[in-house]
Parts: sequence; C-alpha cells; structure tokens
Amino acid sequence: MSQARGYAVHNDKDTLKPWNFERRALGKDDVSLEIKYCGICHSDIHQARGEWGNSMYPMVPGHEIVGVVTAVGSGVSTFKPGMLAGIGCMVDSCGHCDSCRSGHEQFCRDGKTVYTYNSYELDGKTLTFGGYSDHIVCKASFLLHIDERLYLPGVAPLLCAGITTYSPIRRYGIGKGHKLAVVGLGGLGHMAVKFGAALGAEVTVLSTSASKREDALRLGASGFVHTSNKSETKAVAGSFDFTIDTVSAPHPYDAYLRMLKPGGIHICVGIPTEPIAVNSFSLLDGNKSITASSIGGIAETQEMLDFCAANGITSDVEVISASDVNAAYERVLRSDVKYRFVIDCKTLAG
Amino acid sequence: MSQARGYAVHNDKDTLKPWNFERRALGKDDVSLEIKYCGICHSDIHQARGEWGNSMYPMVPGHEIVGVVTAVGSGVSTFKPGMLAGIGCMVDSCGHCDSCRSGHEQFCRDGKTVYTYNSYELDGKTLTFGGYSDHIVCKASFLLHIDERLYLPGVAPLLCAGITTYSPIRRYGIGKGHKLAVVGLGGLGHMAVKFGAALGAEVTVLSTSASKREDALRLGASGFVHTSNKSETKAVAGSFDFTIDTVSAPHPYDAYLRMLKPGGIHICVGIPTEPIAVNSFSLLDGNKSITASSIGGIAETQEMLDFCAANGITSDVEVISASDVNAAYERVLRSDVKYRFVIDCKTLAG
Repeated sequence: MSQARGYAVHNDKDTLKPWNFERRALGKDDVSLEIKYCGICHSDIHQARGEWGNSMYPMVPGHEIVGVVTAVGSGVSTFKPGMLAGIGCMVDSCGHCDSCRSGHEQFCRDGKTVYTYNSYELDGKTLTFGGYSDHIVCKASFLLHIDERLYLPGVAPLLCAGITTYSPIRRYGIGKGHKLAVVGLGGLGHMAVKFGAALGAEVTVLSTSASKREDALRLGASGFVHTSNKSETKAVAGSFDFTIDTVSAPHPYDAYLRMLKPGGIHICVGIPTEPIAVNSFSLLDGNKSITASSIGGIAETQEMLDFCAANGITSDVEVISASDVNAAYERVLRSDVKYRFVIDCKTLAG
Repeated sequence: MSQARGYAVHNDKDTLKPWNFERRALGKDDVSLEIKYCGICHSDIHQARGEWGNSMYPMVPGHEIVGVVTAVGSGVSTFKPGMLAGIGCMVDSCGHCDSCRSGHEQFCRDGKTVYTYNSYELDGKTLTFGGYSDHIVCKASFLLHIDERLYLPGVAPLLCAGITTYSPIRRYGIGKGHKLAVVGLGGLGHMAVKFGAALGAEVTVLSTSASKREDALRLGASGFVHTSNKSETKAVAGSFDFTIDTVSAPHPYDAYLRMLKPGGIHICVGIPTEPIAVNSFSLLDGNKSITASSIGGIAETQEMLDFCAANGITSDVEVISASDVNAAYERVLRSDVKYRFVIDCKTLAG
C-alpha cells in the first residue's frame, strides 16, 4: 500500500477538498505513475454531484491522467521508470470476452469494465480513485504511451475528450471528401474539429454562440453556422455526411438531421440526461442514423495518441492549481473554458 | 384522357366508395397498365384518414400495384402490351439531382419525388391517384418488371412491404453469420423474415403475441421471443447484430437496444407517429445506432423483385373484393390479417 493525496467529494452536495487515501501495493503486472496533470471532464462534475444516480463516495474524480512512471511490477516489460504514460477512463476489464478480446474493453460483455474512478475493481468491493491525486497504481495493459514531443498538459484531455471524438471519426472513416459538422465548440468539440481537419474532412462548426466563429476557424474548421440564424442553418440543409454532436443539454435533433445528406449519420458524444427524441420522418427521409459513441478501446486510444504525436495535436488547455478545482467546475458549467481545465498535480502537495 | 374507375375517400372521415375519374392520355414515355391486384398498406389508412397531416382529397389510395401492360408510348422500349408490370410508391422524380442519379429517387434532393397517390405530378398541380382502380398511366422508368412464375397477388405487397424490408437488409449486407431480430410479425415483418432467412441470416421474431410463434417458424425464423416474457427477453440480451423494427405503435426502444450486440443497428421501418425516444446510454453502451428506412429506389426495387423470382418469394396474402376494403381497413387496424390484404381489381367493375 502507498499513501496518496488527492481531492475528493464525500457526498453529492460536497465540494472537492484535500483527502488522503491508500493506493494498492504494486502488483506483478502493475505500474506506479506519478501524476503530473489531470484534465477536468464534464462527466467528473455529473458523477461528483450524483447526477447519473451511480455515485459512490468518497470519490476522487479524474480520468484524463498523464504522468511519469516511477516503478513497474516484475511482469511488466512495456514501461520503465522515467517514461511518460497516460490513463483514460478504464483501468481493467474481464479480458476474455468477445469485446475485450477485440479491443473494446469499454464494452466488456461480462459487465466488468473497471472505470478509473467511481467503480469497483474486479474484486467487486475495492473502490477506484481517479486522477485528482498525486499518484496511481494501474495494470500496465491499461496504460498508454505518450510521445515526449507533445505539450504534456495538453495531452491529458486526449485520454477522454480526445478518444471520444477520435473513435467515431475512425469508426466511420471520416476524412477527405466528407463534410463533417461539429455541434458545440467545447472540450469535445474542439478536439473533433482538430481531428476532422487533420484527416482532411471539410469541417463546419455549429454553435448557439456567434462569438465562437473565430476560434472555430483557428482550430481548423472551414465553416461556421450560428444556429440561431435561420438563413445560416437553411444554407446547410442536406449538406453534411456526418455530425459529431458534443452537446449534452436538450437540443433539437430533428433540426440537425435536416442538415444531413441522405445516408448521413448523427453521432452523439455528449451524454444528454434527457432522452434523445426524434421524429421518425427525420430518419426515414434519407435513411439517416443516430448513434452515440463512448470513448474507445485501449489499442484505439494508443492509435489516437500516436496520431496526435505524428500531427502535433493536443488539447487547448488552461492549467490550474488543485485549489481552484471547485471554481473550475463552476466555469465548466458556464462553458467558460478554452477548452479544458487541467490540474497541475504538483499543487496537490500544498 | 381515359375514364378510370376506382375507390376513393373524399375527406378524412369518409369511407372508401366507388369513384370515377380521369387518367392522363398516354405520353411518349408512358405505359398504360390494367391493374390486376393492389395491396392494402397501413400507410393507405393513415393517409386516407388524414393522420399524417398531408392528405389531399379526393384520394384513391394504393401503391402496391401489379397488372398487365395494355399500351406503351412511342418512346418506350422496355415494356410491351401483354407484359406483367408493377408500380410501387413513386411514379416520378426530378431525375437529375445526386439522389435521383444514384438510384435513390425516393430522396430526390429537389423534393420532387412524385408519390403514387396523395401527391402532385411534376407540374405541381395535378393530383396523383393510386392503385385502388382499374388502370393507371405511368412513366415507363418507374415501372417494374415482374416474373411470370410468381403468384401475382402475392407480388403486389412486394412493391412496398417487400422493398421497405429488403432495402435496409441490402444496405447493411445482412445475411450469413448475422443474427437478425424482426420486431412485429405483420405485413412488413413477415417479409423481413422471408428475406433474412433467404439470405442466410439467423432470424428471431420478437412479438407481443405468443400466438405468432408457429407462423414465425413456418416463415423461416429459427427463434421466437414473446416480449412479455422476461426470461425470454433476458436470454437474448446483447445477442443480435441487427433489428428490423416494423412496429409503428409506441414501444420501448431502450429494451430493444439492450438486445443488440455492441455495434448493433436498430432499423425502424414502421412509421411511429410519436417521436422515437431513447436514453443516450442505450446508444453509448456499445456504440449502437438507430436508423430508419423508407422504401428503396427503382433499381433496387427491380433487384428485389428479381431476387424474389429467383427464390420463389412472395407475400402471404388474403385476396378480397373491392367492396370489402373498408372492412379490411378495420381488420388491418386489429392486426387481423395474414399478412396483407390484396384487392382483386376486376371486382371494381361491378
């Protein structure tokens, strides 16, 4: 066992406060990681506040983790002390079902995906604690390699926001010759724009906020639609092959479906708490689809990180001290961040 | 012009009654067809009763039409008098947009798909009248060839129920190695079972009515799930690659999505009037999709008819006299038909 220091909530009304807890002893297949940075994902807020009904306390949030390896178990050959490494949303799974064997550990058929926090280890009783902390012990096979050339704080959000947008882009082979709409320009949206543009798609950002136009173009979009402007939305009717929809607030899916070409696919990567509701004619008229996408498997996450290294892609981040995390939550809720808060974990010590 | 005799409704409260009207004179590119049989589609009832809010009266329903060519225009080389021919849901479209040129006339990008009834011709002012009538004049390029070996009354429903289920099966390449669920065993459902089985898929029928088990197996399904039986539904959790959902009444999409494997696709071919509403987690957990499918293009409809000829597939039908059409509507609404009513159009004369 090792003593860890982190920030935790103890109930759904709590704010994050410093908390000391124990990490497991380094096992044969484990790696111990000194956490350098941890991103703040909107889902951290949902879970810290019990908004999904599945919260277990005390909770140390954080699943966008980057750091430096400090020790490896005797069975680990893939990492060595001093190497950079990352951890995303998962830290374990059954390992032998169809999904796990095909690289989709996030869809473990035995229901044994172990999430980085607010989850039980495979023993079914030990709570996992996330990355708002100074170090973590994790199975080596769930650890990702990070290229030293990348700006490390900007890598942290790739482990969730990055893979969540990259995965559906790869699933559908989105790239050259495709018109891609990105709904919402936040943590997820700005990554979807970067990936889409890097892969050669013609990217248009759709936003309720006209002020995001300049940033959308800077990030790689070639078009921008202010969705409150009827003539702008009318001009893009029937024009997109794919939509990556990063919005979790209730919004009019039928209107977005009208902007798709026949055969177009609307991909939800936000997690709306209200049901996704569409008129059947919106799908029928053009054989359109709605799908959703939830992170990606470990191999695909590594592929994404390698793609980022090759193309110099990181997330745009605002690095904060651990003591600012509660204020940062409030700013996330007001969409007042460009585009992801990342906790500098050395500030946890104080 | 030619005098036609049909059955029409004159307002949304009306019952179908004999009605005389005019068909256009045979044009250079037209074919005149003596209608032998016309299927009764549930959408005929919706439109006759104004339930979709787009009804125009007087209305002669019917878009599952088979008959014998009686005359062809001077420009027509593909049909000759005496040949069998069919007409489905469309009779014209712009012909030059992306969709029309790629064989998806049902999704004409100029919005000029002309439906077989309750629609305007390309002139924007002449109402179209459907197949509950003795003859029809139609552009040859929207006419389908029918193999003489097939049981003709059973061919009529292929023009709508057939192509509506065949099209998504072909779109997704459903066949050998796939587990296909068919929700609802009616006009559409029984065709989905026949096509799925003929293409080598392992077909399971899901029905609220346990009494349909025997028929499901007779039609080619290898499995049956009575959806009110919890142990039966639990046994198929996470097991299907695709679902063809033929139900238009409100029903629990989340429950059906749970029965899909990761990556599974739920295909709606019924037309629910209530919005299709799903919990975002039902899609996220396994990257699942919901789509819908609306008939198919002319080339694909011909492919389907040729496939039916090669495999001896027709719809199971109950042939009725025109004077029984109002009673048949009531029976369709009670799902009391195995599996499609077809009007014998020679009974219109009386």
